[in-house]
Amino acid sequence: MGNFRRVPVGIVGASGYGGVQLVRLLMDHPEVEVVYLGGESSAGKPFGELYPHLAHAVNLPVEEVDPEIIGDRTEVVFLSLPNGLACEMAPKLLEKGCLVLDLSADYRFTDLTTYTNWYNKQRTDSATAATAVYGLPELYRSRIAEAQLIGCPGCYPTASLLALSPLLKQGLIIPETAIVDAKSGTSGGGRQGKINLLLAEADNSLGAYGVTRHRHTPEIEQICSDLAGHEVMIQFTPHLIPMVRGILATVYATLRDPGLVRDDLITIFRAFYRNSPWVRICESGEYPQTKWACGSNMCYIGLEVDPRTGRVIVMSAIDNLIKGQAGQAIQCMNIMMGWDETLGLPKLGFYP
Amino acid sequence: MGNFRRVPVGIVGASGYGGVQLVRLLMDHPEVEVVYLGGESSAGKPFGELYPHLAHAVNLPVEEVDPEIIGDRTEVVFLSLPNGLACEMAPKLLEKGCLVLDLSADYRFTDLTTYTNWYNKQRTDSATAATAVYGLPELYRSRIAEAQLIGCPGCYPTASLLALSPLLKQGLIIPETAIVDAKSGTSGGGRQGKINLLLAEADNSLGAYGVTRHRHTPEIEQICSDLAGHEVMIQFTPHLIPMVRGILATVYATLRDPGLVRDDLITIFRAFYRNSPWVRICESGEYPQTKWACGSNMCYIGLEVDPRTGRVIVMSAIDNLIKGQAGQAIQCMNIMMGWDETLGLPKLGFYP
Amino acid sequence: MGNFRRVPVGIVGASGYGGVQLVRLLMDHPEVEVVYLGGESSAGKPFGELYPHLAHAVNLPVEEVDPEIIGDRTEVVFLSLPNGLACEMAPKLLEKGCLVLDLSADYRFTDLTTYTNWYNKQRTDSATAATAVYGLPELYRSRIAEAQLIGCPGCYPTASLLALSPLLKQGLIIPETAIVDAKSGTSGGGRQGKINLLLAEADNSLGAYGVTRHRHTPEIEQICSDLAGHEVMIQFTPHLIPMVRGILATVYATLRDPGLVRDDLITIFRAFYRNSPWVRICESGEYPQTKWACGSNMCYIGLEVDPRTGRVIVMSAIDNLIKGQAGQAIQCMNIMMGWDETLGLPKLGFYP
Amino acid sequence: MGNFRRVPVGIVGASGYGGVQLVRLLMDHPEVEVVYLGGESSAGKPFGELYPHLAHAVNLPVEEVDPEIIGDRTEVVFLSLPNGLACEMAPKLLEKGCLVLDLSADYRFTDLTTYTNWYNKQRTDSATAATAVYGLPELYRSRIAEAQLIGCPGCYPTASLLALSPLLKQGLIIPETAIVDAKSGTSGGGRQGKINLLLAEADNSLGAYGVTRHRHTPEIEQICSDLAGHEVMIQFTPHLIPMVRGILATVYATLRDPGLVRDDLITIFRAFYRNSPWVRICESGEYPQTKWACGSNMCYIGLEVDPRTGRVIVMSAIDNLIKGQAGQAIQCMNIMMGWDETLGLPKLGFYP
Repeated sequence: MGNFRRVPVGIVGASGYGGVQLVRLLMDHPEVEVVYLGGESSAGKPFGELYPHLAHAVNLPVEEVDPEIIGDRTEVVFLSLPNGLACEMAPKLLEKGCLVLDLSADYRFTDLTTYTNWYNKQRTDSATAATAVYGLPELYRSRIAEAQLIGCPGCYPTASLLALSPLLKQGLIIPETAIVDAKSGTSGGGRQGKINLLLAEADNSLGAYGVTRHRHTPEIEQICSDLAGHEVMIQFTPHLIPMVRGILATVYATLRDPGLVRDDLITIFRAFYRNSPWVRICESGEYPQTKWACGSNMCYIGLEVDPRTGRVIVMSAIDNLIKGQAGQAIQCMNIMMGWDETLGLPKLGFYP
Repeated sequence: MGNFRRVPVGIVGASGYGGVQLVRLLMDHPEVEVVYLGGESSAGKPFGELYPHLAHAVNLPVEEVDPEIIGDRTEVVFLSLPNGLACEMAPKLLEKGCLVLDLSADYRFTDLTTYTNWYNKQRTDSATAATAVYGLPELYRSRIAEAQLIGCPGCYPTASLLALSPLLKQGLIIPETAIVDAKSGTSGGGRQGKINLLLAEADNSLGAYGVTRHRHTPEIEQICSDLAGHEVMIQFTPHLIPMVRGILATVYATLRDPGLVRDDLITIFRAFYRNSPWVRICESGEYPQTKWACGSNMCYIGLEVDPRTGRVIVMSAIDNLIKGQAGQAIQCMNIMMGWDETLGLPKLGFYP
Repeated sequence: MGNFRRVPVGIVGASGYGGVQLVRLLMDHPEVEVVYLGGESSAGKPFGELYPHLAHAVNLPVEEVDPEIIGDRTEVVFLSLPNGLACEMAPKLLEKGCLVLDLSADYRFTDLTTYTNWYNKQRTDSATAATAVYGLPELYRSRIAEAQLIGCPGCYPTASLLALSPLLKQGLIIPETAIVDAKSGTSGGGRQGKINLLLAEADNSLGAYGVTRHRHTPEIEQICSDLAGHEVMIQFTPHLIPMVRGILATVYATLRDPGLVRDDLITIFRAFYRNSPWVRICESGEYPQTKWACGSNMCYIGLEVDPRTGRVIVMSAIDNLIKGQAGQAIQCMNIMMGWDETLGLPKLGFYP
Repeated sequence: MGNFRRVPVGIVGASGYGGVQLVRLLMDHPEVEVVYLGGESSAGKPFGELYPHLAHAVNLPVEEVDPEIIGDRTEVVFLSLPNGLACEMAPKLLEKGCLVLDLSADYRFTDLTTYTNWYNKQRTDSATAATAVYGLPELYRSRIAEAQLIGCPGCYPTASLLALSPLLKQGLIIPETAIVDAKSGTSGGGRQGKINLLLAEADNSLGAYGVTRHRHTPEIEQICSDLAGHEVMIQFTPHLIPMVRGILATVYATLRDPGLVRDDLITIFRAFYRNSPWVRICESGEYPQTKWACGSNMCYIGLEVDPRTGRVIVMSAIDNLIKGQAGQAIQCMNIMMGWDETLGLPKLGFYP
């Protein structure tokens, strides 16, 4: 391999589910080397103590979080922290020359007022925030390629936007009729001891939450508005499903042209995503199951038109921790580094 | 007990999940005695061989299905058969003087053309069908009280209609905006060896099916049209959820009066269901979980209004095998017999 | 009903899974009335706020825990508290004349040294403890009938002892060969936010815990020793299973008489339990599934003999929260009150 | 890459869970190319129709099974067929010069009488069978390296033998005291529509099956006898667990030397497996969870000694479809081809 050198990367917030997914994927990435894992509460412990199943393969400690040191040791930093922390760290890391991929909500919004309203936090880094690019490669590939700071999308927005984008971009639907009924596994709730996430509570049960007020709503709307060219409001309802991983977004919208049939839309979607290796449009009459996407970075999209009601129904399935989180961030890194977008990412789902 | 006599009841199709749920509930019902269990493929076997956990309590064989004999031995008959079989048997049982509660789709439709279109079966019993009453007591209590033949609602229609009825009956929504995104446990698929219902396939997965063409659509529409006073089309999408029991229907519709708030609707729903012991409207801000309903005949309904979009979101949760099937049939029987509607039915869910 | 009066009962520790199961069962018990619910952290809240699905049926507040007041208002008290608390309260309740059924470990041991060694707590109530009876009715029915204080068995010991008792009592096995490999659903871990009980961690996983040192070991051994007539050591290994409810104990032991066959043992077990309505010995070749027991107070026992190895294998299945906890306590109460042992308890499992 | 050539491999029986796991792993293997997929019932269909989630990546049809043609086109053949079919095909494939890895039971037994007794099939290929090597690399690495035909171990035997081998090989236990209480996810039952494998039946339930007579018993005993140097009988009991993947074997045996402590055994096991990259011995006091192994080819082994009873308890966890089936076969292929044993196999489990 001669003078081959792997790019040193760091993960801040390595102890959560997003973090461990990043570790697992980046350890197998052919161009990078994980050299730093950071965490607050677990600092000082070997990573293998948090996740014993990785102890044989990940011989790194969890270290304290010091942007100065991280900046010295790494070229790419993934921030997998609770909302409101990345915006404190990112400016320093950027100054040190790192590429920064933030998995929280901190750099997803072009208008920080929206952020402040929905996340209850004043922001002082508006100059930095203005340079951030929304990390959904299927929509913003070229801008991601030139960015130094990425606000990676939320899990629900990823599934929702991949379903909605071709429709909005091409003006096929009446935007205000769009409804996203989303369903997620409980790993989306994180590795924290909440009663409602216990197996005894969540298993064999199902319910909606955050109805009309989930924080992913303004994020979905921001991108939909960008695509539609005018302000769009979306009805978004998340549900907790008794499973570990996976998101299904079932999207309803009224077609402008009631003459469109299913196969027209399949053609349109395939054209829209023809350069997107991580999106697959299902065959006619085939609907995606979340298990298909589990373990891969794929998004599967199924389409149906109801000639009786004039609505299109789009179903998109992802693994919430991969395409919905860690995998997508790595996809963005690949693009930023000029590598193939698929590098080091799992293409084949884990089935059954 | 003096001359107390329990009413003899029979169950045809006792071997399926609907059947075993009927057996379990009717065995504990204080006014009836299960005297007959019928089945095709399992005829001749003791019932305890099909369900060994009931062998100590249910000492009955599964018998062949002969309407003549069933009519002689029972006064109330529950038909829990695949679609298209009840309509062959019910006329004979009615002639013998039995009350008949059919859990299939055969007697749910006032217009048999709809049935024939969606279920691919010609019908020759239109005179009988014309006497059937749709067995949703919360809507048709008084007609059920006088009926001899009940077409018990499907599981999805039960959850959907209990959520939609107050809105449609009082003209609160624009009917054509109504969307029902429904989610069901896999027991709704019955006790049959289908690949997609295997634990290895269905667990930790989630997907829609029958999109735009599920057979419960015309059933929901028929009752919605009756309530609205004119023909109504509903968007209905069912999903298979990795759990055994339970249905959640998430219903979206645009309010006619955008000034209505959540608590207005809670008041309206509570008034609508004030005489319905099996429906509970959740507190303000509380959303039902299917586990709440599991093991009881309850339907829990939660309400939310989105002032931004002008939509109401109604969530209703039931146990698909109890309020969605066997329990509701027994509720109907109670009404037909002049008993208290709650007699012999479980009020307290099985939690956790 | 004339001068019929229900017996007033109280539940201390109503907010946990044992507590809510007691509430659910006692609400349907024909001879008692729940008049008091107590809890520390939830005192002051309506019970329906902790378990919204019961709000329509249980109109009681959670009250502070004052033995004086509880003693005045109730005749029977169920204590469903963490270990080490019941022994502080029980003496006062007994003094007030209450029957006390303790679901914790506090009154399970005849030798308090064992308790202190395994539970790290000094005890000052040895006089009270000496009057306690171990609440496994299948073994100690007549002593329970005369007791005022019951130490209800743990969930694992219930399943284990019902499998082992006929073998030990009749000297059929070599006691020191006995191994109990036990498997439990996660509700046994209680309603607390522990990481390892999260659905995301526990679902689709399986592991042993407390190997060689689980606190149910000395409890099992105490009763086994009592049955064998000499001190017996048992190998006990619990496992956490990705399900909500249910325990299966798989018991291995070497037969003294290698000529015994399966059907001999079935006969012996049936004779042993002939007066025990809550134990069912499976048919020859039939092995119990925990789902059979789920929702009922039943224990199902299956038997197999391996002629090659000379071992008997006994499998016993219970619902850990019913026969393993709340149901068994009520069974004891029935016996103490002179009622039928089956009164108010569910006989038919909740299937599927 | 110059004249780099991938080795052409074929999979017969590609439609089952073992088959799809082979496809997924072999597609990512750097030295091979999957050129043939065979199946009986699915012949003629594109593989992507059986598993739509792989349609974007696996562009191969399922072809009819003709050993002549398979032999011409491939150098390595994996047979993933029901028992009794491989022995019809393997001789022809070997004659054509292929390396053959059989995942069924057909070539696991050195004594075909045992096979015939337990699998009810007469065999006519004893000369071929005599050349087969049992494909457990941790025990038979050097023989595998020289074999042309491998009988890959069953899933339960893999977990059981990795736990038992160091103990038996070093004479640390009394062999006849060994008991294997094994627990498996339902994917081990295959992709077939059996009632007991339905989610509605298997979820939230647990039971033993095949007690004293499971076909993996003689397989475990054959290898144990080989290790012990004399005939050994093992008590083996499998259980079905409500999860998709994973096996945990809990092994009990009496130590010859009661003075051995846990850390002695950890040292012994680590020495035994020091050249086995796919086995990890847990830290002292750490017990493996099946989820740790899920998605990787790892086997995690935990150890405990009970000084009270003189028994060792060994717990081993694997992914039944990877280390228990497809992954292990590929591990064998790597060894046969002279490649690194870890080539192309996942080292990092899929968590959570």
